[in-house]
Amino acid sequence: MSSRDEILRRVRDALGGERGTAPPVPRGYARRLTAEEAATRADVLALFTERVAENRAAVRHVAADDVGTAVAAALWGREAKQIVVPADLPFGWLAELEGVRALADAPALDAETLAASDGAVTGCAAAVARTGTVVLDGGRAQGRRALTLVPDYHLCVVHADQIAGTVPEAVARLDPARPLTWISGPSATRDVEGVRAPGPHGPRHLEILVVED
Amino acid sequence: MSSRDEILRRVRDALGGERGTAPPVPRGYARRLTAEEAATRADVLALFTERVAENRAAVRHVAADDVGTAVAAALWGREAKQIVVPADLPFGWLAELEGVRALADAPALDAETLAASDGAVTGCAAAVARTGTVVLDGGRAQGRRALTLVPDYHLCVVHADQIAGTVPEAVARLDPARPLTWISGPSATRDVEGVRAPGPHGPRHLEILVVED
Repeated sequence: MSSRDEILRRVRDALGGERGTAPPVPRGYARRLTAEEAATRADVLALFTERVAENRAAVRHVAADDVGTAVAAALWGREAKQIVVPADLPFGWLAELEGVRALADAPALDAETLAASDGAVTGCAAAVARTGTVVLDGGRAQGRRALTLVPDYHLCVVHADQIAGTVPEAVARLDPARPLTWISGPSATRDVEGVRAPGPHGPRHLEILVVED
Repeated sequence: MSSRDEILRRVRDALGGERGTAPPVPRGYARRLTAEEAATRADVLALFTERVAENRAAVRHVAADDVGTAVAAALWGREAKQIVVPADLPFGWLAELEGVRALADAPALDAETLAASDGAVTGCAAAVARTGTVVLDGGRAQGRRALTLVPDYHLCVVHADQIAGTVPEAVARLDPARPLTWISGPSATRDVEGVRAPGPHGPRHLEILVVED
């Protein structure tokens, strides 16, 4: 039996006895948080906060009226001078900025401007408590992917009601036809020797503001 | 027959022979623009622009990428120093402001601050070509009523696709449960002697930016 025959045999085996009949795939995902994890809405928020922190992102809770102040404080803390934002970011989120110039990404900023900026501020489409993930889909207040992948700092505003318990619950809220970016902490890889290296494919610094409406 | 009896008789007459049967109401409204008025989308835009101008409001057309510049130019033209805006106004609309301070209405600004401001910038929920009207419903980028009724200047951004031909067409797009404000030109009244007096119930200056997407 040649290598080719052997490979084709394995493919046929994998396809199962009847051509086109898919073998059963186990789907026993954890679709929901446990009763203990999700006893109250506050528990879900606490789980999200804990997991975001475990992912090495900064996380802070703010009241709805304090988003502008919290965004300004975060940017001042980084000594940011110029940031980039989607043009449809709610104005109130930037209303308290003093001494920080915000550039709207419309018309689209060039890559040099994005790279030279001190960060990006966006909202998100959904978030996942169990994994400490935020999901962007290019919709309102999120902008195109380059906006949040090129600058080295990403400040993401998450409304408490956007936080789903698990990944399947978040998927159910999202539109699969949109370009989804799933962000679990700042960019990092363990590709080489299993050693964690930050930032090969995106911001090395992620900060999340949870708005308790 | 006493005056009371006379009045009651008239009421009964008005109610018709059978109690509770409403008399027929003519409903022959002009529900659509004429074929001539609405031959093309550009005709509808032109009609809206003409009627807004007839209502003594300023009107200007801008490309989507130029909204920020146009808003800044309008405010500079009025020598505005401080304006008020809904907190969810798209940031890009204010991205070009230099030397004009924008106050977000969250938490709610007090009436003195609104009155002392040089104007308000908002979007709208719909607009009507035939009457040159913009309609606000308190939704996204519009804010509460006081925001646009207290300051003396209102700059309203209208996307071309928000412009309906007629009032019935606009009504069909709107949610009747929301607080609707219909604005046809700057505030004015002819209550006294039929003489037009500006501004008793709202801004004396209305400016509309039509965004051609």
